[in-house]
Amino acid sequence: MSEDVTEALARIFSVDSELYQGRGFMRRVGFGECPALVNIDLANAWTRPGNPFTCDEMDVIIPGVQRLLGAARPKGIPVVFTTTAYAVTEGPNTDMGIWHHKIPVEVLQLGTDAVAIDERIAPEPGEQVIVKKRASAFHGTYLAGFLRAHGVDTVIVTGVTMAGCVRHTVEDAIAEGFRPIVVRECVGDRVAGAVEWNLFDIDAKFGDVEPLERVLEYLDALVPAREAQAVAATDA
Amino acid sequence: MSEDVTEALARIFSVDSELYQGRGFMRRVGFGECPALVNIDLANAWTRPGNPFTCDEMDVIIPGVQRLLGAARPKGIPVVFTTTAYAVTEGPNTDMGIWHHKIPVEVLQLGTDAVAIDERIAPEPGEQVIVKKRASAFHGTYLAGFLRAHGVDTVIVTGVTMAGCVRHTVEDAIAEGFRPIVVRECVGDRVAGAVEWNLFDIDAKFGDVEPLERVLEYLDALVPAREAQAVAATDA
Amino acid sequence: MSEDVTEALARIFSVDSELYQGRGFMRRVGFGECPALVNIDLANAWTRPGNPFTCDEMDVIIPGVQRLLGAARPKGIPVVFTTTAYAVTEGPNTDMGIWHHKIPVEVLQLGTDAVAIDERIAPEPGEQVIVKKRASAFHGTYLAGFLRAHGVDTVIVTGVTMAGCVRHTVEDAIAEGFRPIVVRECVGDRVAGAVEWNLFDIDAKFGDVEPLERVLEYLDALVPAREAQAVAATDA
Amino acid sequence: MSEDVTEALARIFSVDSELYQGRGFMRRVGFGECPALVNIDLANAWTRPGNPFTCDEMDVIIPGVQRLLGAARPKGIPVVFTTTAYAVTEGPNTDMGIWHHKIPVEVLQLGTDAVAIDERIAPEPGEQVIVKKRASAFHGTYLAGFLRAHGVDTVIVTGVTMAGCVRHTVEDAIAEGFRPIVVRECVGDRVAGAVEWNLFDIDAKFGDVEPLERVLEYLDALVPAREAQAVAATDA
Repeated sequence: MSEDVTEALARIFSVDSELYQGRGFMRRVGFGECPALVNIDLANAWTRPGNPFTCDEMDVIIPGVQRLLGAARPKGIPVVFTTTAYAVTEGPNTDMGIWHHKIPVEVLQLGTDAVAIDERIAPEPGEQVIVKKRASAFHGTYLAGFLRAHGVDTVIVTGVTMAGCVRHTVEDAIAEGFRPIVVRECVGDRVAGAVEWNLFDIDAKFGDVEPLERVLEYLDALVPAREAQAVAATDA
Repeated sequence: MSEDVTEALARIFSVDSELYQGRGFMRRVGFGECPALVNIDLANAWTRPGNPFTCDEMDVIIPGVQRLLGAARPKGIPVVFTTTAYAVTEGPNTDMGIWHHKIPVEVLQLGTDAVAIDERIAPEPGEQVIVKKRASAFHGTYLAGFLRAHGVDTVIVTGVTMAGCVRHTVEDAIAEGFRPIVVRECVGDRVAGAVEWNLFDIDAKFGDVEPLERVLEYLDALVPAREAQAVAATDA
Repeated sequence: MSEDVTEALARIFSVDSELYQGRGFMRRVGFGECPALVNIDLANAWTRPGNPFTCDEMDVIIPGVQRLLGAARPKGIPVVFTTTAYAVTEGPNTDMGIWHHKIPVEVLQLGTDAVAIDERIAPEPGEQVIVKKRASAFHGTYLAGFLRAHGVDTVIVTGVTMAGCVRHTVEDAIAEGFRPIVVRECVGDRVAGAVEWNLFDIDAKFGDVEPLERVLEYLDALVPAREAQAVAATDA
Repeated sequence: MSEDVTEALARIFSVDSELYQGRGFMRRVGFGECPALVNIDLANAWTRPGNPFTCDEMDVIIPGVQRLLGAARPKGIPVVFTTTAYAVTEGPNTDMGIWHHKIPVEVLQLGTDAVAIDERIAPEPGEQVIVKKRASAFHGTYLAGFLRAHGVDTVIVTGVTMAGCVRHTVEDAIAEGFRPIVVRECVGDRVAGAVEWNLFDIDAKFGDVEPLERVLEYLDALVPAREAQAVAATDA
C-alpha cells in the first residue's frame, strides 16, 4: 500500500480503537493451557505465484510458520493443516456448494499439486491435513470434534487469506469455545488493506492478534504434552 | 468518516477490485427463488443510544427494514429476527462461552428490554425471534434447519454489526448453501470504516451487496409463497 | 414388559454381546475429569401423565435425578436442562422443521407449563435451560460451545426418551469429543423395550451405561470445581 | 434370529405401535420432490467377511443398492457414498476423537482397501465419496451444505449399520430439515435384532421405512433433474 493509504487506515483504527476501548471491547482472550497450531490453506495455490488464489508476503509467512512448527512439534501439541479442494467441479454433484458463484474455487481440484500443502512447511506423519470445502476450517469438517477430544482450549492460527478463510476460522473458533490467537507475521492476503482491517476487526471482537515472538515464547514455555495426552488417549 | 479517509478507502477498494476481477473473484451469487428475510440484532441495545453496543445510522436502517418487512410479509416468506442474549452472565454456568473475554456481552441479559427487538420493527405473531449466543445467526441455533425445512435458497440480511454478527452470518449462510444478499442501506456498525471494508470483503467473496431498491423490486416480483408453502408443510 | 419378552430380549443381548466383545466393541469410554450433568426433556409433558409425550418410571427417574443434582451442585459443575418447545406451531414460519410430519410436536408450545422443567427437579438460578427444536441436545443449540468453554470432557446424561432425545444426544456427545455416561436408573421411555435396546446399542458403541450409585460415587469424589473454573473464567 | 425371538420382538413392536399411533406418533414424513441417494459405509470393511466391522445380508443389500443406483443415476440426482476412515490411528494427533474407546475404529485406516467403497457398487466419476470420522454422515462433514446447495429435500438412505451410522444419519437428516427415507432391504447390521428395533424406532420418530420396490417406483417417476439442476448451478 502507498504511504498515504497506510496512514489513512492507521488514523481510522486509532479513532475506532478509542471508541471500542471506551465501551469495553478489545479485551484480551489470552492464551490457554492446551493449544493447537492450525495452519490455514498454506497450499501451493495460495503460496506460489501464478494461481488466482496466490497471496503475498510468503517470504515472511513461510519462515514464520517454519519457526512455529519447530516450536510446536517438540511439545506434542496437535498440528493441523487445512487446504480447500473439490472432488467434483462440474455438474450437479459438485461439492463446491454455491461458492463458485462468488470466487473461482473451480481451479482447486482435489488431488492436484495446487491444493497440496507447500513442501517448505510439509506436514509430518501423524499431523492432520483437513480438506475443507468452505472458508472456515470448522465448517463441514471434524476440526471442532478433533480439538475437543484432545482437550485443546487455544487455537493458534496462521495462513491465508485474512479476508476469507483465516477470519471465518477465527470467528468460528471463539464461537466453539476455543481461544483464538492470530500470529501477526504469519497471516496474509492478496489485496491491499485486507490484512490490516481484518486483523483490526478480529482483535477488537474475536481473538488476540499477537506477534510471532510472543507466540514462540508461549510455545517454548509449554510443558511437553505428549506424555499427558498419550495417557489421556489410552486411560479409558 | 472524514472526507480524506473515505477517499483513501475508495482508492484501496478500486485497486483491490481490479485485482479481484482480473482473477475471477467478485462474481454474482444472485437471487434465488425462495428467500427468507433475516434481521440481525436489531434489538434496543444496538438500535438505541446509551448502550456499549449502540450502533449508528438507525435513521436509515430502521426505515429500510420497515420497507423490507412491508414487502416480505404479504409474500409469506419466512421472516427471522435475531438477538444476542445470555441467561447467566456470572459464574461457571455462563452461556457467554469465552466471548466476554473480548467484548462486553455481560450487559446483554436475557429477558431485559435491551435485548428485545426494536418495537419500530416489531416481529409479528408467527415470526421467529432467535436468541443466539455467538456472532453468527447460524452458530448454535436452529436457523439452518429452519430455513432448509422451508425450502429457502436465499437469505436477505439486514442489521448490525457489519464487523461482527452480520459478516459472520453471511459467511455461514453461503457455507450452508444459501445465497446471501446484504441490503446496503440496512446494515450498520459503530466504528468508522467497518461497514465499508466488511461490505467490500463480503461482495468479493461471500454474498452480493445490493441496494434496498433492488431488493424491494425482487420481493415485489415474488409470487406469494404462502399457499405453496402451506401445501408443502402439510402434504406428507 | 411380560416376562417372556424380557427373557427374549436378554437372550438376544447375550448373543449380540458375545459377538461385539469378540470383535473389540463394547469398550469403556470411562469417566473424565470435568463432567457436566445434562438432563434431557424432564419437563412436564414428559414427566406428568396425560400428554402424548408422557413417559413411564418417573417414580424412579425423578428421585434419581434429585440425587444426581444433590451430588453435582456442591461440586460446581455445569448443570444443564433441556426442553423441546416451539414458538410457532402453525403456518409457514414454524420452527418445528419437518418433525411434526413424524411425531406430535405441535403440542409442545413455548411458554406453556407442559414444556417447563418438572418442579421436583427445578433448575436453580445460574443453571442453563436449553430450548431445543430437535431430538439431540446438541442439534441447533449452543450446548457444544458451552461445554467446551467450560472445559468439560464428560457428559452425564439423564432423561427421556431413550429411543429419541437421549440416544441422539449421546451419539452427538461422543461425536463432539465428550465422554457420554448414561445413568441407568435415570433414563426412560414410553414404549416397552425401547429403554433396553437403546441402552444396549449405546453401551456397545457410543457411551457407557452406568448404575446411579457408581455415578454418585464419581461425583462425590470430584474436587469442587467452582474455584478452578472461576479462575479459568477470569484469568484472561 | 431364532423364531421365538423374532416372534417376541414382533409382539413388542405390535404393542408399542398401538401406543404410538394412539398418541399421534408414527406419522409419514413422505417423499419430497428433490431426493438424494446416500449410501452409508458400504465399504469393504463392512461388506466383505473377515473384518471386525463385517455385516450380514450383503447378498440382499448389494443387489438392492445396485438397483437404486440404476434408478437414480439416469435422473441426475445427487449420489453420495460415505466411508469411515482415519489418517492417524495412534498418538496425540489421532482423528478418531474418543470413539476408539468404544469400538475398534483403529482398523479403519485411510487409503486402505478396507475403507474403499465396495466395487460392486462403485461410485461413478462425479459422485461424492465423503470420508467421515463419526457415525453420522452429517457430523463433521460437508453433507448438509452439499445437499442444501443442490436443493435436496429428501434423503434416501441405505447401508450399515442400523444400530450405528445409519440411525445417527437418519436422526441428523430430519433435524437438518431433510425427509429421511430408509430402504428396508438395503440396510443391515452385524448383530441380531439391531436392524429390527432400530427400524422400528426410526419409523416411529425420525423417518419413513419403505420397501425397495416403492422407492424404485418413486425414483422412476421423477422427472430427470439434470437439466433443471444444471441451470440452477449456472444461472447466477
